Amino acid sequence: MKERFLRAARGERTDRPPVWLMRQAGRYLPEYRELRADNTFREAISTPDVAEEISLQPWKRFGVDGVVMYSDILVALEPLGLEYHIESGVGPVVENPIREPADRPVERTPIDESLDYVGELLTRLAADVGDEAAVIGFAGGPFTLASYAVAGRPSRSHVPVRGFRAAHPEAFADLLDTFADVVTDFVQYQVDHGADVVQLFDTYAGLLGPADYEEFIVPVHQRILESVDVPTIVFVRNMAGRLDQLRASGADVVGLDWTVDIGVARDILGDRPVQGNLDPSYLLGDPDFVAERTRDLIERAGSAGHILNLGHGIDRRTDPKAVEAFVKTAQSIDR
Amino acid sequence: MKERFLRAARGERTDRPPVWLMRQAGRYLPEYRELRADNTFREAISTPDVAEEISLQPWKRFGVDGVVMYSDILVALEPLGLEYHIESGVGPVVENPIREPADRPVERTPIDESLDYVGELLTRLAADVGDEAAVIGFAGGPFTLASYAVAGRPSRSHVPVRGFRAAHPEAFADLLDTFADVVTDFVQYQVDHGADVVQLFDTYAGLLGPADYEEFIVPVHQRILESVDVPTIVFVRNMAGRLDQLRASGADVVGLDWTVDIGVARDILGDRPVQGNLDPSYLLGDPDFVAERTRDLIERAGSAGHILNLGHGIDRRTDPKAVEAFVKTAQSIDR
Repeated sequence: MKERFLRAARGERTDRPPVWLMRQAGRYLPEYRELRADNTFREAISTPDVAEEISLQPWKRFGVDGVVMYSDILVALEPLGLEYHIESGVGPVVENPIREPADRPVERTPIDESLDYVGELLTRLAADVGDEAAVIGFAGGPFTLASYAVAGRPSRSHVPVRGFRAAHPEAFADLLDTFADVVTDFVQYQVDHGADVVQLFDTYAGLLGPADYEEFIVPVHQRILESVDVPTIVFVRNMAGRLDQLRASGADVVGLDWTVDIGVARDILGDRPVQGNLDPSYLLGDPDFVAERTRDLIERAGSAGHILNLGHGIDRRTDPKAVEAFVKTAQSIDR
Repeated sequence: MKERFLRAARGERTDRPPVWLMRQAGRYLPEYRELRADNTFREAISTPDVAEEISLQPWKRFGVDGVVMYSDILVALEPLGLEYHIESGVGPVVENPIREPADRPVERTPIDESLDYVGELLTRLAADVGDEAAVIGFAGGPFTLASYAVAGRPSRSHVPVRGFRAAHPEAFADLLDTFADVVTDFVQYQVDHGADVVQLFDTYAGLLGPADYEEFIVPVHQRILESVDVPTIVFVRNMAGRLDQLRASGADVVGLDWTVDIGVARDILGDRPVQGNLDPSYLLGDPDFVAERTRDLIERAGSAGHILNLGHGIDRRTDPKAVEAFVKTAQSIDR
C-alpha cells in the first residue's frame, strides 16, 4: 500500500513493514520470461506496453507495496550520446566508451526526448496502481554510470574507472559532475511523471576507498538527492564500515546491503529510515528458511522507518515460492 | 629484509615498513610474461624451476621484503580430487563441481603427494633468499575454496555457494570443515618446507552476512590459523564494518582491503599488526601520485606493526614504474 510505504520512508511506525524487492520484475518469474521471449531487454524497457506489464507482474502475483518501474540503471547514459546494448553472457556494452579525458561527453539531449518512454511508463503505472502501491522510479548513480562509460563493459572490481580516477583525478570529478547533472534532471522528470519515491543505485561506488568516496561521491549524491521533493533511497554496496557516508548523501532512506547487521546500522543511523536487507541468496533456500530469516530481520529492524527488501537484487535462479514466503511473512505481521 | 618483516608481524617498531605486494609475481612484469609464454599457468606453478624464477622476479627487480611463492589459491582443491584448470577469459573451472551435499569429497591424498611441488618451491626459495627476505606461503580459505568447488567457475558475487549455504546449511558447514582440514595440513606443510609466514586468502568470505560469517567462518579460520607456529596473516575483502571478526580469526596480522581507513582500523584493532592497504588502482596513476599516496598511508599506519601492501592483488595493467614508486617510497623511510 502506498501510504504504508510513504509512512515508513518518513520514519513513521507502520502496522507491518512495507515490502518490495530490488529487481522484482525479472527473470525468476515465468510470466516475465514469457513476455521477454519476443523482445530484447532494450526493446522491453523502452516499449511502454511491455514495460508496464512487466512492472506490474510482481505486484499482481505477490501484492508488494512498491511497484518499481521496469528499466535499467544505465539508461541515463543515453542523453549524453553514450550508446549501449546488452550482450548475451557479457552484460552492458557501451559502443563509444570514454578512454581519455577528452572523450567526456559535452552535449546532451533533453530527458523528455531521449528518455520519454520512462515518463510514459511512470504515468501509466501511477494510474494502474492508484493508492494500492508506491510507484518507484530509479536511476544509476554517477560512479556506476562512469564505470560502464569508461570500461565499456562489466569489469572485475570496476578497475578501469578506478584507474581513470588515479590517472585523471580532475577529469574523473568532471565526469561524475556531468552524470550528476543528467541524473538530477532524470529523477525530477520521474517525479513529474508519477514516481512516488526514487532510488539512486550507485551500487559500485563503495569500491572507492573512504577518502575518495568522501571527496568524489558524497557531494554528487547530495546534489542529486536534495533536489527532489519525494522520498529518496540511496543504495550502495560495501558500505558497512562507513554508513555515515551513506547518511551524508541526504537520502531519506538508507539502503543496506546484506553484509550489514541491521541492528548495528540502526544504532549508527539513529532514526534515519532504512531499507533492506535480507541476503538475496537466502531465497535459494526453502520457503520455511526464508520465512524464519525474514521474521528475524523484521524484528531486529524495529517497527518504525523500515522498508523490507533484499540486500541486493534478486537472483534469477530464485523460485517464486521463496519470494512468496518473503512477502507473505511481511504481510502476516500485525503490530 | 626478513627480520624487518617478522618484527612488523610481531607488532614491533621497524625502521621503515616492510613491503610486498599481493600477486607481485604476475603479468604486469615483462619478464614474467616472457617466462609464461611457454607454459600454461598450471604448468608454471607446478614446475619448481619455473615457479622459483617467477617468485624471485619482483624481489630481484624491486627489493621487496617478502617473496611470495608463485602458486594459486585453489591448489588445495587437488588433494580432495577436485580437478581444475584455468580457462582463458573465464578463470578457474572445476571439472567435477559439488552440486549436491552427496558430492562432498570424502577421500584425500596426502599433501606431500599431490602438492609436493609447493614444498620443493618453498625449500628452494628459502635457500635463495636467506635472511634477505621473508618467504611467504599461502592458501585459499575454506569459503573461497568452497565457492569455486560449488560454482565450478567464477561467479558473480559467489551466489552459488551462498545458495548452497541457504539450501543445505549442514552440508555447507561440513564442506567448510573438509576444506579447513586440508588447509590446516597444507599450511603446516608450507612451514615445514621453509615458509617464514603464511597468509590465508579467504578473499570472498566477506560476502556472507555478519551472522553467517560468525557461525561458519570464524571457527574454521581459528582452527587453521592457530595451528601454525610462524606468523600468520588473514585477508578477506569487504570486512570494513566488522574488523572484530577478522581479529577473531586469531591471525597475527590482519590484512586490510583498500576500503578500510587504516587509521580507523588501528583504533578498532588496537595493537594487532595490520597489512595493507593502498588502493591497487592507484598504481594505474603516475609515479608521483603513487609516491604521495604511499607516504600518506605509511604515516597514518604508524611505525609499529605495519606491513605495507596493496589492499588487493596488483592489476595486470599496472606499469612496473608505479610499483617501483610504491616500493621505493617505503624504502626511503628512515625513522
